[in-house]
Amino acid sequence: MTRRLALHPDRLFSADPTTRAIARTLYAEVADLPIVSPHGHTDPRWFATDAPWSNATELLLAPDHYIFRMLYSQGVPLDDLAIPRRSGHPTTDPRAAWALFAAHYHLFRGTPSRLWLDHVFAEIFGIDVALEAATADHYFDAIGERLATEAFHPRSLFERFRIDCLATTEGADDALLHHQAIRASGWQGRVITTYRPDSVIDVEHEQFAAAMERFAALTGEDVHGWQGYLAAHRKRRAAFRAMGATATDHGHPSAATANLSAVECEALFARIVGGNWTPADAELFRAQMLTEMAKMSVADGMVMQIHPGSYRNHNAGLFTSHGRDKGADLPMRTDYVHALKPMLDVVGNERDLTIILFTLDESAYARELAPLAGHYPCLKLGPAWWFHDSPEGMRRFREMTTETAGFYNTVGFNDDTRAFLSIPARHDVARRVDCDFLARLVAEHRLEEDEAVELAHQLTSGLVRRAYRL
Amino acid sequence: MTRRLALHPDRLFSADPTTRAIARTLYAEVADLPIVSPHGHTDPRWFATDAPWSNATELLLAPDHYIFRMLYSQGVPLDDLAIPRRSGHPTTDPRAAWALFAAHYHLFRGTPSRLWLDHVFAEIFGIDVALEAATADHYFDAIGERLATEAFHPRSLFERFRIDCLATTEGADDALLHHQAIRASGWQGRVITTYRPDSVIDVEHEQFAAAMERFAALTGEDVHGWQGYLAAHRKRRAAFRAMGATATDHGHPSAATANLSAVECEALFARIVGGNWTPADAELFRAQMLTEMAKMSVADGMVMQIHPGSYRNHNAGLFTSHGRDKGADLPMRTDYVHALKPMLDVVGNERDLTIILFTLDESAYARELAPLAGHYPCLKLGPAWWFHDSPEGMRRFREMTTETAGFYNTVGFNDDTRAFLSIPARHDVARRVDCDFLARLVAEHRLEEDEAVELAHQLTSGLVRRAYRL
Amino acid sequence: MTRRLALHPDRLFSADPTTRAIARTLYAEVADLPIVSPHGHTDPRWFATDAPWSNATELLLAPDHYIFRMLYSQGVPLDDLAIPRRSGHPTTDPRAAWALFAAHYHLFRGTPSRLWLDHVFAEIFGIDVALEAATADHYFDAIGERLATEAFHPRSLFERFRIDCLATTEGADDALLHHQAIRASGWQGRVITTYRPDSVIDVEHEQFAAAMERFAALTGEDVHGWQGYLAAHRKRRAAFRAMGATATDHGHPSAATANLSAVECEALFARIVGGNWTPADAELFRAQMLTEMAKMSVADGMVMQIHPGSYRNHNAGLFTSHGRDKGADLPMRTDYVHALKPMLDVVGNERDLTIILFTLDESAYARELAPLAGHYPCLKLGPAWWFHDSPEGMRRFREMTTETAGFYNTVGFNDDTRAFLSIPARHDVARRVDCDFLARLVAEHRLEEDEAVELAHQLTSGLVRRAYRL
Repeated sequence: MTRRLALHPDRLFSADPTTRAIARTLYAEVADLPIVSPHGHTDPRWFATDAPWSNATELLLAPDHYIFRMLYSQGVPLDDLAIPRRSGHPTTDPRAAWALFAAHYHLFRGTPSRLWLDHVFAEIFGIDVALEAATADHYFDAIGERLATEAFHPRSLFERFRIDCLATTEGADDALLHHQAIRASGWQGRVITTYRPDSVIDVEHEQFAAAMERFAALTGEDVHGWQGYLAAHRKRRAAFRAMGATATDHGHPSAATANLSAVECEALFARIVGGNWTPADAELFRAQMLTEMAKMSVADGMVMQIHPGSYRNHNAGLFTSHGRDKGADLPMRTDYVHALKPMLDVVGNERDLTIILFTLDESAYARELAPLAGHYPCLKLGPAWWFHDSPEGMRRFREMTTETAGFYNTVGFNDDTRAFLSIPARHDVARRVDCDFLARLVAEHRLEEDEAVELAHQLTSGLVRRAYRL
Repeated sequence: MTRRLALHPDRLFSADPTTRAIARTLYAEVADLPIVSPHGHTDPRWFATDAPWSNATELLLAPDHYIFRMLYSQGVPLDDLAIPRRSGHPTTDPRAAWALFAAHYHLFRGTPSRLWLDHVFAEIFGIDVALEAATADHYFDAIGERLATEAFHPRSLFERFRIDCLATTEGADDALLHHQAIRASGWQGRVITTYRPDSVIDVEHEQFAAAMERFAALTGEDVHGWQGYLAAHRKRRAAFRAMGATATDHGHPSAATANLSAVECEALFARIVGGNWTPADAELFRAQMLTEMAKMSVADGMVMQIHPGSYRNHNAGLFTSHGRDKGADLPMRTDYVHALKPMLDVVGNERDLTIILFTLDESAYARELAPLAGHYPCLKLGPAWWFHDSPEGMRRFREMTTETAGFYNTVGFNDDTRAFLSIPARHDVARRVDCDFLARLVAEHRLEEDEAVELAHQLTSGLVRRAYRL
Repeated sequence: MTRRLALHPDRLFSADPTTRAIARTLYAEVADLPIVSPHGHTDPRWFATDAPWSNATELLLAPDHYIFRMLYSQGVPLDDLAIPRRSGHPTTDPRAAWALFAAHYHLFRGTPSRLWLDHVFAEIFGIDVALEAATADHYFDAIGERLATEAFHPRSLFERFRIDCLATTEGADDALLHHQAIRASGWQGRVITTYRPDSVIDVEHEQFAAAMERFAALTGEDVHGWQGYLAAHRKRRAAFRAMGATATDHGHPSAATANLSAVECEALFARIVGGNWTPADAELFRAQMLTEMAKMSVADGMVMQIHPGSYRNHNAGLFTSHGRDKGADLPMRTDYVHALKPMLDVVGNERDLTIILFTLDESAYARELAPLAGHYPCLKLGPAWWFHDSPEGMRRFREMTTETAGFYNTVGFNDDTRAFLSIPARHDVARRVDCDFLARLVAEHRLEEDEAVELAHQLTSGLVRRAYRL
């Protein structure tokens, strides 16, 4: 006897009838608004080639570290899930991998992955039974059949999802060929890139040397001299802007910034490219480069995103066998007030600059981030991120930032995903959680209902378009 | 078409009807109790002179960094808001500044400033339309007219607000002339001072040298010798007590305390006043002085308040142009368990001493502060402070401290404000949030209703009078 | 006029009627399930001798630091509560101590102690008036009379409480005589031990030297040589397993682990036992021993519990007069992501190893602990601990861990208590809070009701039996 799968129209709304009724009204205002996705990690190749995806496992399971990290934590080997090793793909049958996932689907109870996946299954694929061992084959077949049809090709889904703008993220050493191909194709979907220079800034990144070579080749600059290196960044920022980019993104271990003199910069850079750097040099260089990037943003108008605080590749054994992005990145305590001061001393009072701060350390929301964003003209708060991109996480974000930073120092929602099919689900969850938060303020007479309607639109559309200059 | 302004009688109560009904009952018990304000920053000159305030901008906008920090964060220049520079007042028209504020009033949605201001507008000034661009002149005129009348002079409002006791805060180098004038005037309002010696303890304070000179002049002691310096503190504490003070207040960067030998104290003090101190010396001296102040409190019975964890004047550019208290103070992570141990080793088990701890780091509530206050006889918890003095902040304070420290190791509400007109609003918010928290405990059968009634009175009146010895 | 004492059947359930109705249904499923108590500090002597307890003060008040720390914080001297000093028992009359406690019972409003005690009074002793000064004698008499009867002897209560398994905790230097006596007695109650080697691992522990001597005597090993020391641990772990132990427990100041070479281990151990160690050596040795214990757990299958982050004996004066465990242990900020990496590099991917992590620092729940447990196969999350073992604390635990770690990386409830009579109350609170959390997920359509029923059983019984291998 299989269980029914049906998304409840009131899901994620408070049980209290007064609050729920207000939440419904607010949600009705924004439920069908187009999706603006200013930060994410989908593959631009999909939209360049519009080639169909092959099966449920390759599309939904193997690329999604939210899913396989949970399965791995409960003892399921990655090979059995068709997750690639550094040495190549395991010879796992995709159907068998899917069955294994289905048999463990109960592990996701209470997680956002469950919400997103059920939304994908029910809304996108039209499946009406719950995923479990008994329905694994039905799922695998139904999804496979649909993926083979034109309506499930990447561009068709992009249009069906009503995506107004989708930003991908490419490294400074990326030639942006897929983005060029999208533009050359004549397709009208707005897919833009984002400038992510980590691999040419972080000398501790395992791909630093190779990335610097490509960086040099793409720019024709002497990237091993400080001035040439900066010039190369300026050139590539311009090239990214030509492919639609309005923003840069920086994923550093900490939020440290620095404000060195020109002489100190030259000397530090010489140690970095000379190979005789210490870990402290590496950190200082990353710190200085955030300030350099901020200064370039003052000049060229690109919005700057700082995503700090992830301990990358924590699992040594798994990194050796499977490489990066295998669910072994872990949040760390992150300081902002001290860390950002050197950069803010330079650009903090710039009214035309926008720097969007993210965190994996929720204790910074009320203590540091909301007070910073509620004072400095250049600072805005990015939404609840990664591990906190969930109903409870989003609720805590609003509860801990709104009273000090207000709503207008936030920037709407980021789906931040490489799981393209989950994008509508993620935006839907965010809209529901925001509407429910607003509904509580109205129900407690802390906000008028007409204000809440205006805010629901702002949180869905207005703030993101303004902050990201879209 | 202007929007209506009306305070809902159930504002800040849970939407759930059972909880709300209990909250209403509890609130009815305490809504009209007199205000006891044991910690704040109003200007004693107002009550000494009883001179009228001039207009809405000078009274409500220009002195309130809660308001202008938010406007500044959204790109509004401080000059346009009539905020004084170090070099003097800008030539901004107060009416134009008010209009600018009104046009940005939507920024405060979801913030406590909005709750406080609407209360001031509706309850104190009797305005019945919402503040927005279209009503700015109406507000400016209506407020201006009322301020010119006798009923809106400081002492009249003090009495109208039913303030039982109002504590201001003065530096150790303050001659307390306004407090003397209040007493000499024969007016019966109870305005008392609080001993705040930061500027003669913190050698990194920009006014340290000048404050030490006044400290010497006021006491006739050799304040540059360790014994004379301590004697001067004792004299001034006595002088403050003569002006009603029952408490001292200490705003340090950290909660660090120290317990040095007499010889070490002498040597450290010699470095401090000799000018050859390091930043570590400055921190150590502040730390030692908390212990010295605690020992003096054991002797003279003054309640000690510790307000740590603010990074003062974070915005370098703004500090240069506009000076301190311009909304650029930011919370920092703060340790208590290690920091307070040296002082607690000396005075921790004193049953007649009261030390009230505050924090800007909410992560310390359940982890450090409630466990400390739930053990040491001398320690009590101050209410949610500054950035956390808000409905959600107060709720988190209760949720994270009550189970370990109970209600009876807390000390009621502090408004901590220089915005005199907001005092009734702030106490009203605190009473509502506390009643709603108690109502939830009753509704969930964790507390009997008669106990909640008793606690509502304690949280409003009993605990503050006892803790501050009023 | 005394007040009534009656436990409300809906206590701890949300006031919202929809949520409450679901919570009731879920709770009905698990309310009467047997108690599995895999971690606690009851005295095995009780069950070995089955001797009756003497009176309310000696049973309920004097041993319970949750209670007397609160009374002490409000100025009640420990002598007056019959709390033993190092120099011996005070000559306090137990009835007078009980009366003092009763007169201060209002201090516990809003605390879990109040919930637990009322449950003990009403359910176990059948008392129907509330505790207060006026009822103190009635309580003391009623409890005393019942304790003298057979039905209130330890083994009778064990059976009445429907305890399926109760784990106590003994040091590595404990001869386990009471556990042997329990087994020899033929009584069928399942009381098992837990291996807690802190006193022979922590050279800063005041009993280290004496404990090492007993450790040597019990094992016949040369415990002052590194190999002999490790062999002694292996022998004692086996001896504990013979007394039913399935787990070890480690209460370290931090979660630091280390992964030293064999040569480094030998040298470090020589410094430790040679007496020429530094505090850094002491910390490093504790860190290395966590890794050694984890490796032994891989070999012998014992579950490993890590309880870090308590600053023991913070109150210097009280430690001198009264010794340890007097309510003066305080939580500290605790890092896990960096701290555990050396150990996880060795055993992190072991699928048959279980390491259960606890915290006193709630800021680590969403930031570090849930992400760690949601990835590493060997890691599970222990329940809300000590100061956080309370309705709000348990709620925060679920809200901050479920979305990343799910329910299945948690291990059910620990009562962690030496207050035997409170065990049913504590498990009842945990079941109610968990059912209410699940009910909210159902009411918000984030979980189906049949899934919630299954989870309620898992959180009560399934997960604890599996995690602790019972």
